[in-house]
Amino acid sequence: MKKKIVFDCLGGDHGLPAMLAGAVTALQKNADLQMVLVGDAEVIKPAVAPFGDRVEVIDTKTNIEMDEHPTQAIRNKPHSSLVLGLEQLKNREDCGAFLSAGSTGAVLTGGFMKVGRIEGVSRPAMCPNLPTAVDDKTFMLIDCGANMDCTPTNLVHFAIMANEYQKARGIDNPRVALLNVGTEAAKGNEVVKQTHELLTKLHDKKLLNFVGNIEADQVFKAEADIVVTDGFWGNVLLKSIEGTVKFVFKAVKNIMTQTLWTKIGALLIGGKLKAFKRAKMDAQVASIFIGLKKPVIKMHGNADSGIVTAAIEYAMSVANLRLDERITKALNKAEPVLTGKNA
Amino acid sequence: MKKKIVFDCLGGDHGLPAMLAGAVTALQKNADLQMVLVGDAEVIKPAVAPFGDRVEVIDTKTNIEMDEHPTQAIRNKPHSSLVLGLEQLKNREDCGAFLSAGSTGAVLTGGFMKVGRIEGVSRPAMCPNLPTAVDDKTFMLIDCGANMDCTPTNLVHFAIMANEYQKARGIDNPRVALLNVGTEAAKGNEVVKQTHELLTKLHDKKLLNFVGNIEADQVFKAEADIVVTDGFWGNVLLKSIEGTVKFVFKAVKNIMTQTLWTKIGALLIGGKLKAFKRAKMDAQVASIFIGLKKPVIKMHGNADSGIVTAAIEYAMSVANLRLDERITKALNKAEPVLTGKNA
Repeated sequence: MKKKIVFDCLGGDHGLPAMLAGAVTALQKNADLQMVLVGDAEVIKPAVAPFGDRVEVIDTKTNIEMDEHPTQAIRNKPHSSLVLGLEQLKNREDCGAFLSAGSTGAVLTGGFMKVGRIEGVSRPAMCPNLPTAVDDKTFMLIDCGANMDCTPTNLVHFAIMANEYQKARGIDNPRVALLNVGTEAAKGNEVVKQTHELLTKLHDKKLLNFVGNIEADQVFKAEADIVVTDGFWGNVLLKSIEGTVKFVFKAVKNIMTQTLWTKIGALLIGGKLKAFKRAKMDAQVASIFIGLKKPVIKMHGNADSGIVTAAIEYAMSVANLRLDERITKALNKAEPVLTGKNA
Repeated sequence: MKKKIVFDCLGGDHGLPAMLAGAVTALQKNADLQMVLVGDAEVIKPAVAPFGDRVEVIDTKTNIEMDEHPTQAIRNKPHSSLVLGLEQLKNREDCGAFLSAGSTGAVLTGGFMKVGRIEGVSRPAMCPNLPTAVDDKTFMLIDCGANMDCTPTNLVHFAIMANEYQKARGIDNPRVALLNVGTEAAKGNEVVKQTHELLTKLHDKKLLNFVGNIEADQVFKAEADIVVTDGFWGNVLLKSIEGTVKFVFKAVKNIMTQTLWTKIGALLIGGKLKAFKRAKMDAQVASIFIGLKKPVIKMHGNADSGIVTAAIEYAMSVANLRLDERITKALNKAEPVLTGKNA
């Protein structure tokens, strides 16, 4: 019996109508999808009527806004769609994942407070899948912004969690790389150098497939399935990729409209470029906050209904994985290697 | 009397012929340019004969290779083009800047050892100029990879040095931004938070124009003239921009060659795209290792002769600036503010 997807329909820049449209499309496409939708029941119920029992609705009009202080908002708004949704995920055996496009701080804090960490995990992490130059191949960037001032142990836990996740998704012996400023083992700052040593130890014990350092200009080559990084520079990498893609596309568009001749060329190419951008750059539809007892998934705040549908399907792919058991087991195996006992 | 540019002609992937071609072009274009060329005199002299007294040649065939350990290479090869060139810069009043496309580690180490730091500078930094979406506007990224594990003081010194440099180049009241993961002052890791406080203090004393945090996807908006960062995540940003530009251009090219129609479009646009890429992306021709008593400038290892010519002209623009005096003065003014005495 497939687990249900809990969805906070009030989060995100575009609000309930767009979230609802995305959910309805997902329900239409996937006959085995069952959902718990949290939001204004008066609006939601008529929209999901055709799907009968497949959709439960939890009624609330309260949203946690982007500018609210996360911890305070969670305490002061126990009937917000975020809090109610997370509680559904925590308390119900039949619910497998939670999804929201709302305030990242509130989603992460709420996930931490309400759902709780998998035993043994030092810090949960945000881990989006980013595109590469090789069709259909993505790499998981972990952590991309949830954790500042990570220790080597935190980084190694990121590697282990992502490794279990990628294996559970069917990737055989995922290649784990460490984001660094050069390829040699001795490169980087203190945290990264120590992390390199620890990952090498795990590799020697065949506990994961560490392929060494990777530099920020090499991540598109699909030579790693997982790129491990502190949340600060992971966020720099993530935002830099996003910003540079926009920058180059805008420039290409400008060039294409400069003269009549290039305008004609632009007409011929424009559609394909748009499709490419959508497929590649928006592939990063959502990120699982990995390390919590059950999957909490965050979408971009400006997700439109197409992104929502893709994110719900992504949630479906992780809702039944029992990541908590896999991760606890992997952390236990790694512990003696990392602490040096019975190394 | 304009200062001479000292040029290590043996460094770089393409070797002496390309370096020489770039130098000759620069000499041809700039009637007031005088150079000291360090390399194989037998090859260089006939090439620069037309420029008579404007060119001195220091003879050597010895190069420091990319894979040599920098400190050892500098000690073991006192007659390498790098070491001889740096000594020319250090010892001669009439020499204003040194330029090389050789091993970055060797150039930085050699600069540090031979030329020495400006008084008061904690760590010299690499600071390339990167393009923005606004024509002709660039931003200086400091540090982009020379310094790991920077303290808040190091970062503030980067800001002060870059500020003096940009002012000397004619930018009025340069806007200094701090690379961070969010806009709020409380964002980021410990080092960045403390740096934010110190930069704010300097701003309040009108010692520089601190415009706050900047995120990695905003750097192209030309809203900052200087972006301050630790060398680790600065290097992530730099390489990420380079890698993403290549990735997107390659994808655009692939799309353009997919069908006959788009091939036609490609013909019309291709030339302009190439020109754009050259102008914008290769604008980052060279980086000054700022904080040394005299400018030491590093070009990309794969610089072709066009890049070399541009880099020589860049060297000319800094060779007469007396950055050492400006920086020492600025650091002295900042000192009481940073240490809290007479704040």
